[in-house]
Order: sequence, then structure tokens, then C-alpha cells
Amino acid sequence: MADAFALYTYFRSSASFRVRIALNLKGIEPEFRFVHLLREGGRQHSGEYSRLNPQEIVPTLVHGSHVLGQSLAIIEYLDEIHPQPPLLPRDAWARARVRQLAYATACEIQPLNNLRVQNYLRDAIGADHSAIGNWQGHWMELGFRGLEALLANSPETGRFCHGAAPTLADICLVPQLANARRARLNLDSYPTLTRIEAECLDLKAFADAQPARQPDAE
Amino acid sequence: MADAFALYTYFRSSASFRVRIALNLKGIEPEFRFVHLLREGGRQHSGEYSRLNPQEIVPTLVHGSHVLGQSLAIIEYLDEIHPQPPLLPRDAWARARVRQLAYATACEIQPLNNLRVQNYLRDAIGADHSAIGNWQGHWMELGFRGLEALLANSPETGRFCHGAAPTLADICLVPQLANARRARLNLDSYPTLTRIEAECLDLKAFADAQPARQPDAE
Repeated sequence: MADAFALYTYFRSSASFRVRIALNLKGIEPEFRFVHLLREGGRQHSGEYSRLNPQEIVPTLVHGSHVLGQSLAIIEYLDEIHPQPPLLPRDAWARARVRQLAYATACEIQPLNNLRVQNYLRDAIGADHSAIGNWQGHWMELGFRGLEALLANSPETGRFCHGAAPTLADICLVPQLANARRARLNLDSYPTLTRIEAECLDLKAFADAQPARQPDAE
Repeated sequence: MADAFALYTYFRSSASFRVRIALNLKGIEPEFRFVHLLREGGRQHSGEYSRLNPQEIVPTLVHGSHVLGQSLAIIEYLDEIHPQPPLLPRDAWARARVRQLAYATACEIQPLNNLRVQNYLRDAIGADHSAIGNWQGHWMELGFRGLEALLANSPETGRFCHGAAPTLADICLVPQLANARRARLNLDSYPTLTRIEAECLDLKAFADAQPARQPDAE
């Protein structure tokens, strides 16, 4: 079926969380295929999965004969083939602002804090539990400080990161804040971020995409 | 002037390198403003710069009254306002593939290896020079292995990462390979990546954007 979607996902992966939000906003119901990142040394490293996604990370979207990794590439693709509701504004400058906000999470915070980085810090660098916790807090705080300033200082910030409808920026922000809450990070310094998070989680598309609500949640 | 561009840049920053390539491909000549990441504790942390870019990282593009951080947001913006020559293909699936390849570098390799991460590993984790070198090599090798498989196995790979013209994927790849060469990483296992790198560096837009050719190079 040319228009059938399947998503390889893991409940706790924040990149998978982003794609689940986007699919919900678009009203697309994919077949979910669960990739447990911890069992059997990580099923993302199995031959079957690594043939599909040589980066051996989740998520992966399958759409007909197309196989696509990288959450932001998946979300931009969904937005191009299913334009309603839009996940990016129409104006070029507004789109740029939304992408800047999205990448401020996706290129500056999340890559430093995912599971394989924690494993390398522990196994190869010899960092203990406390040092790894400090590492995670450091990059989240640094990233959130920048994001809070970008959002609080701009008249373009609205109910959501950009105006009155959720965009790619909110889709990246909410999963990162979920990680921060899981790590018990104090978020008092980021009132704009947490206000927008609450607005997002009032929407069913965001709420239903949360890790605890997934069939593979533990 | 509404159409005047200024780029805050540092010669050795690979994110700045990406934007320099994109500007050269588009034939845009911005005013360059140099931000030395090592002098005076890092001029990206000065009040003047952090008001412009609260993330305190380079590059930042100023276009008329717009101020924009995040290299990939800048490049997508340039591509939208100056569509020729295109930096993304027209077809939605092809665009998705190019973005996946670009993010495989920009979200999986570069964020783990930039200057502030090296500083934190040294100062807060206590990693020595050798451990930091291993860290950098590890993330580059992991990322390059995935990229090599994605590129070598696809009929859509051409003279460049996607077909016969350079795209966002090549713009991300070449600066990362430059970092790898600087770190003396053995690249023998990535023949597709190095073949494409050579094709790119034959183009004046890529060659002129290299760190050593910048006015602020040391």
C-alpha cells in the first residue's frame, strides 16, 4: 500500500516522541513496530534493524517503499506530503525562526544526552552516576537558558513557540522537557518554556504521544 | 538595507563552514564579523554577542532586521529566499533523504565534538587529552559508518550525496570530514564519503569556504 505508514519507535526515545506528536497532529495512524533499546544489548543493533537504518537509532519511518531515519527529516517529510495542519509557518522568516528553535533542542541538547552517550561516558570515560547526572543537567540548562531568552524576548512567541498553533519548535521542546522532568531538573528559571509545555500537553496530539501512554511503555 | 547580510563566524567552526559554503553556492557576499571562540574566555560569551544570539554559539546571520542562529536554519532560510541554485531537491522524498543525510552529521556527530563539549569533558569530567581524542574518534566513526552505508547502498547517490548537484547533505558532510582530517582519523573505511568530499572540494564554493582560507584563520 503506497500510503501505509509504519514507525519503528521506542517509548522513551525523545526523537520517537517528536515523530509521534507530528503523526498525531496530522491525523496519521501508522503501524507501530517497537524497538527496545535496552533488551538483548539493544535491538536497534540487530541485523534486521540495522539494514533498515544503518545509523542504528530510532525512529525510522517506512512509507510505502521509502525508509527514512532522523526525526526532523521525517517530520519535514510528513509536513510536505500532508500539509494540513502545517507544522511550519508560511513566511520564510517565520519558518527560519521555528527551525532555529527546533534545532536549539535537536542539535544542542538531545544529542548530548541520549542513551548511547550516557553509556559511553560510563564505560569508556569512567564517569560515575553523579557525573553523568551533572553532564545531563549541564547541557539541558545551557540549552534551556538560550531557548528561554529566544522565546521570552520575542513578540513572535505566542500561545506556542511561534504564534497560536503548534509547530516543529514545540514538537522538539516538549519531549526535551519530559526528559528534564524525568531527570528532576529544576525548571523554575524557564517560565516561558513550561508555560508553552502546558499549552501543548492540553492538546490530545501531544498528550497521547507521551512515553507513558505508549504500548511498549514499562 | 533590507537585503544586506552579515555573518558572525569563526574560521574553525564547522557550523560556520556550512553556512559559508551555502552563501558561496548562492553567490551571496555577506559582511563577515569574526567571533573568536578562544580569546578572552570566548567572545561568543560577550554581552554584545549573547544579546544577538542567546545560545552563545556561532554562526549568526543578520539579514536586514532579522537575526538568526543555527546553521541549518540559516541554510534553509537562504534556500527559501534565494532559491537558485537549490540546496534541496524538489521531490518530497528526495528532500527527506537529503535532510536525513544532513542531520546524520548535524545531530549525531558534530554536537558531540564541538569545542564546548571538549572543554566540559576536560574540566568537569576530568578526561585527559587521549580520552578526549578517543571520544571524538568514536562519534565520528560511528556517524561515518552509518553515512557510508546510507550513501553506498542507494542508487540515489550520485556525483554528490544526492544526484548530480551539491545539497544540504554535502554542505554538512565536508566540514565534518575536515574535522576528521584535522583529528587524523583514518578514513579508509569510507570511500563514498571521501569520493564525494573530493567532488565538493573541486567546486570553488566549497574550497573557498575552508577554514584555512578565512580572513580570521590562524
